[in-house]
Amino acid sequence: MKVLGLITEYNPFHNGHLYHLNKSIEITGATHTVAVMSGNFLQRGEPALVHKWQRAKMAIECGVDLVIELPTAYACATAELFAFGSINLLHNLGVIDCIAFGSEYGKISTLEMIADILFKSPLSFENSLKSYLKEGLPFPAARSKALIDFYKFCHSNGCDEESMNIESIMNNPNNILSIEYLKALKRLGSTILPYTIPRVKAAYHSKNMTSDISSATAIREHLKMRKPLEDLRKVMPSVSHKLLKEAYEAGIAPVFKEDFEHTILTILRRENSVGLAEYFDVNEGLENRIYECSHHCSSIESLYNCIKSKRYTLTRIQRICMHALLNLKKKDLLRFNHEGGPQYIRALGFNNKGREILKSCKSKSKLPIINKINQYIPSDETAKELLELDIRATNIYTLALKNHFFSSKPLDYYQSPYYARK
Amino acid sequence: MKVLGLITEYNPFHNGHLYHLNKSIEITGATHTVAVMSGNFLQRGEPALVHKWQRAKMAIECGVDLVIELPTAYACATAELFAFGSINLLHNLGVIDCIAFGSEYGKISTLEMIADILFKSPLSFENSLKSYLKEGLPFPAARSKALIDFYKFCHSNGCDEESMNIESIMNNPNNILSIEYLKALKRLGSTILPYTIPRVKAAYHSKNMTSDISSATAIREHLKMRKPLEDLRKVMPSVSHKLLKEAYEAGIAPVFKEDFEHTILTILRRENSVGLAEYFDVNEGLENRIYECSHHCSSIESLYNCIKSKRYTLTRIQRICMHALLNLKKKDLLRFNHEGGPQYIRALGFNNKGREILKSCKSKSKLPIINKINQYIPSDETAKELLELDIRATNIYTLALKNHFFSSKPLDYYQSPYYARK
Repeated sequence: MKVLGLITEYNPFHNGHLYHLNKSIEITGATHTVAVMSGNFLQRGEPALVHKWQRAKMAIECGVDLVIELPTAYACATAELFAFGSINLLHNLGVIDCIAFGSEYGKISTLEMIADILFKSPLSFENSLKSYLKEGLPFPAARSKALIDFYKFCHSNGCDEESMNIESIMNNPNNILSIEYLKALKRLGSTILPYTIPRVKAAYHSKNMTSDISSATAIREHLKMRKPLEDLRKVMPSVSHKLLKEAYEAGIAPVFKEDFEHTILTILRRENSVGLAEYFDVNEGLENRIYECSHHCSSIESLYNCIKSKRYTLTRIQRICMHALLNLKKKDLLRFNHEGGPQYIRALGFNNKGREILKSCKSKSKLPIINKINQYIPSDETAKELLELDIRATNIYTLALKNHFFSSKPLDYYQSPYYARK
Repeated sequence: MKVLGLITEYNPFHNGHLYHLNKSIEITGATHTVAVMSGNFLQRGEPALVHKWQRAKMAIECGVDLVIELPTAYACATAELFAFGSINLLHNLGVIDCIAFGSEYGKISTLEMIADILFKSPLSFENSLKSYLKEGLPFPAARSKALIDFYKFCHSNGCDEESMNIESIMNNPNNILSIEYLKALKRLGSTILPYTIPRVKAAYHSKNMTSDISSATAIREHLKMRKPLEDLRKVMPSVSHKLLKEAYEAGIAPVFKEDFEHTILTILRRENSVGLAEYFDVNEGLENRIYECSHHCSSIESLYNCIKSKRYTLTRIQRICMHALLNLKKKDLLRFNHEGGPQYIRALGFNNKGREILKSCKSKSKLPIINKINQYIPSDETAKELLELDIRATNIYTLALKNHFFSSKPLDYYQSPYYARK
């Protein structure tokens, strides 16, 4: 058994995901696959289009063997925390041999090198970073410049090809996430072998559906415009498309951030800036900006546009609003992290090979495995709170569903993991 | 100048209100009138149909001389606190000679007698009340029984006419509110003279619009069913009807509790029972009941029905949910009360006679008069927080308005009191 780990959101599962899955199996020679998947709220600070069980079902039906949930605290976090949570979970499973992730750059060695500098954070790099920050550069730009300086310094004779690359590498979100995965592996001293697969940028971000690979963003945009579900047939595996359609028919999809518009605005308007500053990533007076904007904007779109700036990215703003919606405070996140991250393995779906993995985890994993949450007794306060947050996230998410059957019960207590007998 | 005080919600101003106004002037011989009016959220725990400035305008156009706002903390409170806040404000104006309120019973002497017992709370009454509570009776029933016992005891020779009345008196909401007004007058040692006007129960509660007097509840039900605005012409003064229509046309009415359905459910689901217990009137495990129900109900109507019981009235539940919506905690209410209640006089509308009253208040009132809130500097933390709550309530209320112009600004900073030059 050679087990491959994947870090995913599958929102929804499309041909690009299938390509990544198959390519990853091919280059790693894995026999089994585990996807860590975000639950009902995602890293971009948005609700998922379809709830976590249906997305897990899509993944299993498309060939993933086991889907486990990334706890909400990490699923809706910064790249660094998201990566740390995911890698930590995979590492603690105790059975993962390798992981594979997409990156715009596509070459693991350079990403490893950058991750190494960032992880060790040598003094000259630190000083360089500090001075750029002092100049007023936003953090990503300062970090990128400090990396180039450091690289030049090590390779002494001027601007070589690699250092030219660093800036463009650090400008791409999947590279940054990849570097964070590699940093997390180092932090944990993990022996999991990392692989990267180049993302074909143009195809992934294409807004039209001419190619058979389209970005999840484009798919969601298409759905948001209420364009026909049928158009998505060519960009999604047929079974995934069928399950999406099924979700629409059952009144449990689609869910968009606009479904929480009134609620998010109210929650922000309920608090003063002292209260707003209790959320993660709210500092340097950002709380005042959020306060002002929340009182002058009556749509979620205008709210985000009002708050965002060069310094504060859209994703950061969306994430903060998501934290406010879920009542997730800075102090909670810091405590979770301090206690070592995810505290349990929670299956959302599996097939027979997935069951083999779970069986093997039983002896090898450092974390308890949850199948039904009412049979799980958290070992401590951190585990309890992490799980409570996952449950709370679902209970808030389901209020957006048209089918009230699903918003009238705490779904986590009723929904079993999806089991495909094959 | 003989000034009459009225305690009102005017939601919306109808013929019954006009009758009460004219009758009160007639029996008191007042030359000037002041109405203390609730803002955007009301004692029943519901949002107002129309915002406070438009309702103040209705009242002024219908003959009230000055409308001042009852701070939200008191407007959305139990009968006792609502009465204390209102009477306190009228008392502190320093210019009020008399007040007149409607009651089902209609005779001031008996109400005064009951208020006196409740205010002085003699030992035998206290003991009797305690023993009924111990038997498991809900508070209102226990209080009513203890009052009868006390009355019998004083009048020694058995069950006389008055003690027969007590039970029916204590079963009617406007009697209870009247008794609370009288208690508050006693508590403040106020010299304001109280009058009561009998409410014609049948007419007030009539659900059809055959009579020219209909209850505000019936009017709101009519509007909620989207029945024609025109039908209300016969139960509202024409100018009030015109202003209601104007509000509809401007997209600022109607507002119903259902407009906050998703938000209230989310806010409740965001908290655990410890958090829920921080709201006023949540005790004895009611927090667990609210927690359970909020996760099993997906509509506000089903939520209320799920929580309410013999012990917990619908109004109490609605008020708690309103407090959750407004982020008003038990500790805040207790502090406001401890600090003596309302801290400022805020005009929402007036005519020339109203200006005379305000002018007279300047020298006689113990409280500062606010005309524009950005020109007002609160004297202490309590005044600041009371005002912040009023502003917050408006900012949350306006999110329900169809016309986004009004939800895109903190209205309290932009809206001046209505001035009718006549």
